[in-house]
Amino acid sequence: MTFRVAARADVPAILGLLADDDITRERGFGIVPEEVDAGVWAAFEAIDEDPRNELIVAELAGEVVGTCQLTYLPGLSRGGAERMQIEAVRIRADLRGRGLGERLVRWSLDQARARGCRMVQLTSDHRREAAHRFYLRLGFTASHTGFKLSL
Amino acid sequence: MTFRVAARADVPAILGLLADDDITRERGFGIVPEEVDAGVWAAFEAIDEDPRNELIVAELAGEVVGTCQLTYLPGLSRGGAERMQIEAVRIRADLRGRGLGERLVRWSLDQARARGCRMVQLTSDHRREAAHRFYLRLGFTASHTGFKLSL
Repeated sequence: MTFRVAARADVPAILGLLADDDITRERGFGIVPEEVDAGVWAAFEAIDEDPRNELIVAELAGEVVGTCQLTYLPGLSRGGAERMQIEAVRIRADLRGRGLGERLVRWSLDQARARGCRMVQLTSDHRREAAHRFYLRLGFTASHTGFKLSL
Repeated sequence: MTFRVAARADVPAILGLLADDDITRERGFGIVPEEVDAGVWAAFEAIDEDPRNELIVAELAGEVVGTCQLTYLPGLSRGGAERMQIEAVRIRADLRGRGLGERLVRWSLDQARARGCRMVQLTSDHRREAAHRFYLRLGFTASHTGFKLSL
């Protein structure tokens, strides 16, 4: 599996990965529209231009099979060190359970170390028990409650 | 209580608020150095220049008594809408329990609405039970586990 920053042409594949998930379906976002929404293209451009945001794709045999988004958060805590936040981690449904998600997260941790981040954080729905086991195995601490409010 | 974006002159007061907290002390970051670290000044400049980050202070009678950091996260989900993330919420120790934190978070939610965010998210240490009650009261759902890894 190889990892790289997503290009514009990867957006439809990424949307497919984001939608193909039981919890996402339950939230009502499980269908990928045929045409990519203007708002989604604008969001891709915003991420692509932002030095503190990276949309990542994982490729296997030339196909996009995984994705995540990395955000570098500046902050005054811990001597002003950046922290990395990992969002929207997905592996293609038929390839789950083979450790690919773990490889994607481990690669992200290497990026955080290379950039000098002092902390990496992410949240995961309480129901994603298999994902939680691998975050704990990677050394994460499940110390926080993640609160969400839809507007 | 009034709210505004922090200026450079607010940084020492903000560091005082961040440090004056039992959980922060336990993590070993409870002492404010006499001189503000160069890394902290650099982080302040990074936040100040970044259109997706805002360091906020709350003032009461001309004094800085509260702070939080707002980050606007771009993403492909939910039609490409931004989400707001709230970090590092603090109210001065002698003023806690009077609803000031709730006012600060409610003001932040108004900012999110004004900007068109579709979601607001934050994490809070499992031990901050009083804070959790007010997040639930504000309409947040405690749906996620927050994982942290120190590098």
